[in-house]
Amino acid sequence: MRHLLSTKDLSRDEAINLLDIAEDMADVAQREVKKLPTLRGKTVVNLFFEDSTRTRISFEAAAKRLSADVINFSAKGSSVSKGESLKDTAQTLAAIGADGVVIRHPASGGPAVLAASGWIDAGIINAGDGTHEHPTQALLDAFTIRRRIHGQASRSRGLDGVTVTIVGDVLHSRVARSNLWLLTTLGAEVTFVAPPTLLPSNTALWPARFSFDLDDAIDAGPDVVMMLRIQTERMSAAFFPSSREYSRVWGLDDARFGRLGPASIVMHPGPMNRGLEISSAAADSANSTVLEQVTNGVSVRMAALYLLLSGDRKESKNVD
Amino acid sequence: MRHLLSTKDLSRDEAINLLDIAEDMADVAQREVKKLPTLRGKTVVNLFFEDSTRTRISFEAAAKRLSADVINFSAKGSSVSKGESLKDTAQTLAAIGADGVVIRHPASGGPAVLAASGWIDAGIINAGDGTHEHPTQALLDAFTIRRRIHGQASRSRGLDGVTVTIVGDVLHSRVARSNLWLLTTLGAEVTFVAPPTLLPSNTALWPARFSFDLDDAIDAGPDVVMMLRIQTERMSAAFFPSSREYSRVWGLDDARFGRLGPASIVMHPGPMNRGLEISSAAADSANSTVLEQVTNGVSVRMAALYLLLSGDRKESKNVD
Amino acid sequence: MRHLLSTKDLSRDEAINLLDIAEDMADVAQREVKKLPTLRGKTVVNLFFEDSTRTRISFEAAAKRLSADVINFSAKGSSVSKGESLKDTAQTLAAIGADGVVIRHPASGGPAVLAASGWIDAGIINAGDGTHEHPTQALLDAFTIRRRIHGQASRSRGLDGVTVTIVGDVLHSRVARSNLWLLTTLGAEVTFVAPPTLLPSNTALWPARFSFDLDDAIDAGPDVVMMLRIQTERMSAAFFPSSREYSRVWGLDDARFGRLGPASIVMHPGPMNRGLEISSAAADSANSTVLEQVTNGVSVRMAALYLLLSGDRKESKNVD
Repeated sequence: MRHLLSTKDLSRDEAINLLDIAEDMADVAQREVKKLPTLRGKTVVNLFFEDSTRTRISFEAAAKRLSADVINFSAKGSSVSKGESLKDTAQTLAAIGADGVVIRHPASGGPAVLAASGWIDAGIINAGDGTHEHPTQALLDAFTIRRRIHGQASRSRGLDGVTVTIVGDVLHSRVARSNLWLLTTLGAEVTFVAPPTLLPSNTALWPARFSFDLDDAIDAGPDVVMMLRIQTERMSAAFFPSSREYSRVWGLDDARFGRLGPASIVMHPGPMNRGLEISSAAADSANSTVLEQVTNGVSVRMAALYLLLSGDRKESKNVD
Repeated sequence: MRHLLSTKDLSRDEAINLLDIAEDMADVAQREVKKLPTLRGKTVVNLFFEDSTRTRISFEAAAKRLSADVINFSAKGSSVSKGESLKDTAQTLAAIGADGVVIRHPASGGPAVLAASGWIDAGIINAGDGTHEHPTQALLDAFTIRRRIHGQASRSRGLDGVTVTIVGDVLHSRVARSNLWLLTTLGAEVTFVAPPTLLPSNTALWPARFSFDLDDAIDAGPDVVMMLRIQTERMSAAFFPSSREYSRVWGLDDARFGRLGPASIVMHPGPMNRGLEISSAAADSANSTVLEQVTNGVSVRMAALYLLLSGDRKESKNVD
Repeated sequence: MRHLLSTKDLSRDEAINLLDIAEDMADVAQREVKKLPTLRGKTVVNLFFEDSTRTRISFEAAAKRLSADVINFSAKGSSVSKGESLKDTAQTLAAIGADGVVIRHPASGGPAVLAASGWIDAGIINAGDGTHEHPTQALLDAFTIRRRIHGQASRSRGLDGVTVTIVGDVLHSRVARSNLWLLTTLGAEVTFVAPPTLLPSNTALWPARFSFDLDDAIDAGPDVVMMLRIQTERMSAAFFPSSREYSRVWGLDDARFGRLGPASIVMHPGPMNRGLEISSAAADSANSTVLEQVTNGVSVRMAALYLLLSGDRKESKNVD
């Protein structure tokens, strides 16, 4: 694998291979010394044009567990903010010897531009670009679902027939997009539940179902309910009257949570607005995978860094 | 030792054990390669809700010298500042695999809440919480006094009979509180010297003497004079007419310093306001331990990280 | 070598020795595992009183490639910004056990004060001080020129007879000053081309020629043209009517670039203002060494850290 930019690009075999390697990485976390020498001498740069402490920390932990050197580059206050182009930044990182660049960028497509540019030879991982994609989030979600459903027998499996209902601000959510493509590739069936004002206009092209009634969607008994984070700053905009109203109509409150089946899975990418899009009872229940998602995030990011930066990088491309 | 939250919790044996391990750590700093493999594969997160470069750097140096991986998490600009709860932050760090969390928090009791919560299994070190405690500061102070007084014969010893006079803004000082409990536990006798407006209201419960005359306190010939840092922003408040007035009445100026005995020890937690609470002559004298305190801070923090994070963690609890 | 404060202090032998070691370090970057154990157990502090992500990252990569522990200390928001003196900061770093301090300071001479002070025993590297010097920039420039001209046969050579034309805001440029001294020491001939308002008043003492006509200087056929970065914030000041005017008179535009010889070298310390002091055609041409400069920066900084911090530190002083 050369870069990890989008889950839309991933074949089923590539996705399953990455998830399987993440299983191996999860085993490492159980050892006494939670560290592999795999990326010793490699340099990973976390190039963050937007703050995201949680994502940065997860990648930093993953890279360090593989013995890579990590350099954090917050674009705020740097020459980037003084108008340096992405090209010059990328070439500088290449010249410094970066082997991998984890990039969070406010513009949709920023990481793809970087990867296609030839400015830098490093492996590029998209850590969230605008409203476009956040592929490692989708991969950790898929990993989490697969483990919950198949347990120890997860390896080499997809998510065939699994029903996943994704709820909330789909319009602005890169998590929703990345999950749509990956879950579909792995054989799952995706339903989006959102207010019409928070759906994008091109959904006719999406391989998914749509619903405008969360109660109906809950009562359909999905295997997985994934709640998206609502950006509270959108509340003051035209989208909604109030957060109370949002919570009442589109939140996974205690009543709705109580109607889910006992084996259903409740997911959230974090950070949660407890009492807004999700109740504390739902978030802290045995059905919830919120913390597993964070834990699995490190394993999945270790797998991605391994595939992109280790010597096996070219060979692994089409491995089953 | 499970957590290090407060010196009030420490038994005499536990405190002396930690100081003795810090002596071993100080020896490591004398080696050609100043590094131990002890915490290889462990992850230490510096979770700072307030800026404190000096304390963060000391813990970072300590953790790296023990070969731990260090992740710095400044809560400013993170989702924490966007309203994420301490619970969610803690669970995220747990899920990422943090083995130790060094926390600086503006609220008194924040680290204790974290430790008692069950949200995270990591060892918690309080690196300063509100006006409550700053235990590693007190431990490095005790280590410094013990070394000055007992030299090479420090191991296994307390501070029995040592007289310590602590001067300044006791009301707002977590350093004063942590020192009070630890020094008393180790057998020292503590006297506080402060203007009445800068003393807390519950001092009746403190095992200490109080004085409102620095000259008297100096002339009593204490073994140790510890000057607290005055927050200059309090000068404009109701507490004092001016910094000049503060310095005249409550500062360790050259005249007062000159009346101290030749073997007396002058301490300050730093950063100093030279010319305000302490004169440069006093700060830079042979009596001053200001720099030893910083050096010893790394050794004491190595000891604390070792006790909390190494495999010996449970066994070490009641070691003499 | 004890400190690296200025290129003015460097003898020809010292400079060539450092460049030769940088050649060895460049070889390391070609290996499968790009890492040396040389500085294991050493602590390098990046003490930056001004933001400079590019320089900080280069030093961080260099130190990590030598297996040192790196601690970043941005003086913003620290007790330094609350008025702590350079003395107290330096003594704190010394007490924490810093073996090397890479310092960027807004005041010309700040790093020299630190080195001469006795406050800290660590090796000090000046990473840019006011308008004074930026020695590792000049060393990487000299390294880059030497490699372009002598290729594989660079080792032990100077730059005798090489003609270097430095163009732009010489008044405010520490890069220009550091290059002047180093290039002259290595035998090169330096010509400055600048508007009279952007030349310092003491140039009578500089071993260089001066020109006020960039076209003449270009047509003289220099081996190297080094464009300085123009600070766009100076454009609104008395120095210039506009950036368009600056570019027309003092920029390396396509026409001027076209008149350079085919073997001429075009340099820029970065980050570039494309279209202002340098055209994209010039910056991206085969003549341009802009990216080689960044790559060589890591090698040169590894060499400097090695000379200052390794056990060979004293012995290497007068090595040829």
